[in-house]
Amino acid sequence: MKMSEFDLITRYFTRPERAYPPEVLLGIGDDCALLAPAPNLQAISSDMLVEGQHFFAHVDPRALGHKSLAVNLSDLAAIGARPVGFTLALALPNIDPAWLAEFSTGLFGLADQHGCALIGGDTTKGPRTICITIFGEVAARSALRRDAAQVDDDIWVSGDLGEARAGLAERRGEIVLDTAACATAHRRMDWPTPRTTLGLQLAGLAHAAIDISDGLVGDLQHILTRSKVGARLMIEALPIGPALRNLPTAVQRDFCLAGGDDYELCFTAAASQREQIHRAAQAARIAVTRIGQIEATPGLRVYDQCGTQIELPTTSFDHFAR
Amino acid sequence: MKMSEFDLITRYFTRPERAYPPEVLLGIGDDCALLAPAPNLQAISSDMLVEGQHFFAHVDPRALGHKSLAVNLSDLAAIGARPVGFTLALALPNIDPAWLAEFSTGLFGLADQHGCALIGGDTTKGPRTICITIFGEVAARSALRRDAAQVDDDIWVSGDLGEARAGLAERRGEIVLDTAACATAHRRMDWPTPRTTLGLQLAGLAHAAIDISDGLVGDLQHILTRSKVGARLMIEALPIGPALRNLPTAVQRDFCLAGGDDYELCFTAAASQREQIHRAAQAARIAVTRIGQIEATPGLRVYDQCGTQIELPTTSFDHFAR
Repeated sequence: MKMSEFDLITRYFTRPERAYPPEVLLGIGDDCALLAPAPNLQAISSDMLVEGQHFFAHVDPRALGHKSLAVNLSDLAAIGARPVGFTLALALPNIDPAWLAEFSTGLFGLADQHGCALIGGDTTKGPRTICITIFGEVAARSALRRDAAQVDDDIWVSGDLGEARAGLAERRGEIVLDTAACATAHRRMDWPTPRTTLGLQLAGLAHAAIDISDGLVGDLQHILTRSKVGARLMIEALPIGPALRNLPTAVQRDFCLAGGDDYELCFTAAASQREQIHRAAQAARIAVTRIGQIEATPGLRVYDQCGTQIELPTTSFDHFAR
Repeated sequence: MKMSEFDLITRYFTRPERAYPPEVLLGIGDDCALLAPAPNLQAISSDMLVEGQHFFAHVDPRALGHKSLAVNLSDLAAIGARPVGFTLALALPNIDPAWLAEFSTGLFGLADQHGCALIGGDTTKGPRTICITIFGEVAARSALRRDAAQVDDDIWVSGDLGEARAGLAERRGEIVLDTAACATAHRRMDWPTPRTTLGLQLAGLAHAAIDISDGLVGDLQHILTRSKVGARLMIEALPIGPALRNLPTAVQRDFCLAGGDDYELCFTAAASQREQIHRAAQAARIAVTRIGQIEATPGLRVYDQCGTQIELPTTSFDHFAR
């Protein structure tokens, strides 16, 4: 099939103008997209996904389209911003219409759920690489910044942890899971759910927040560093994903503390706000769990129920460390 | 040298907070960057550069840092926007400190010239790929949209054309250039100058504009299509780059009409504005040349001085066509 770069954009990535939210005055097709002035702050984040690093070559392209946007929506959620639009830069080794149809279906499926419009981008030949830059809006006083944690804050996480890491381990042949757990783990790995509604509910209520993309310990450490505080976690309080049930305890803990790709929110809030936090989570239809406290002493300490300190597993995920 | 992804960002891409313009309330290091509300429209553009497609593996990394941002600044110029900030997503096969030092020096050298701050991004392991998303601001009535060309408008280009294409041809061994022409052609190819000041001068004065990245004919065609008009060009009026002087006329014309990577502006304006256009160009210290007219009849026609229509060389650059 002969298709040019321009045909590709028109066919798979251009949508009727009515699909743009009112903030988007000019979308795909000019030198730049144009967004209307907004009274709130604009939140911006970029992520790049590379074949062989972030996804397997034969991953379901529909899932890949979904996940490419999900990881960016997750960044907006982690700062409490409402999604507005995104740009997509796409390198592909060739034009494969079946792949593109599936990829764009997964991408727009999630984009439409969040009212988040594709407003521009770039396509080129190259090793399969997806770079999305996303834009959202958040009121100045409501942004959930990493530097806003306060001593004595509760530390919370949404949903449960470790299942995406189990999906990766299973696909690599490192562990064996039963059929149901395997399906759950793969779904968590391939079809992450950005906690957009929870982030919006927490904006102005919680203090600091981050999304867990590289593992709880490493990501929480970013909050601690930027807020110049420390923390203690209770290992028994961690919401371990049900798909990990049959794995050894040490593996469960490792996947929960250091497994990447969870895309849950880790956030801190004043202890006086516990009821409000639970109400926010109910409104967002996601469970939240208190897992520890912010402390003045720098560093992150994890304890079991006997009060014994547990050695931290591995550090945060680092693409260049492998 | 052992360096983590986080070290890399800190070492090469994080700068003191004072380097941020006042619009940037929160820069690198959180889930998102945060920009202050702005009274004007926001212009957004993304470009992805892939090794082996857009640049040679052994290109000077300082030039590559410059060019990566230049192509995005050029998109802002083409819509008449003032640069504000950009995100950088970078895939690298390994951490090479010398390469990174040069790349970031080239990148920030140009960024600082334009008061354009790096506000966020991503780094990952992968085939060398650079994706920049840039943000600028432009008053609503001043934006130089591709759909704004009007019948009887003059068609102008800034600077001269074809030299970057000659640099590519020379590097590929397709042509031979004398030493001085070769140096000029390579400089045009590796160190493009975005026409930012000209774009700002033209905002609210010219009608439609585009930057010439894929070749004059193909890029002008985008204006014609979106404005639902046609055009005539006078071949003798084209500002042929001096470095092309010793090449056959047919090659000169081909490089001017269809050579990519010029990053000059092609724009249309009312004939009544000629003096104003020249004044704008003087203020921006760049020559501008009238090369044709917008016509009601769709399509692009090129004539020589005898009034004979010339066949168009090749169509616009298409990464997937090769």
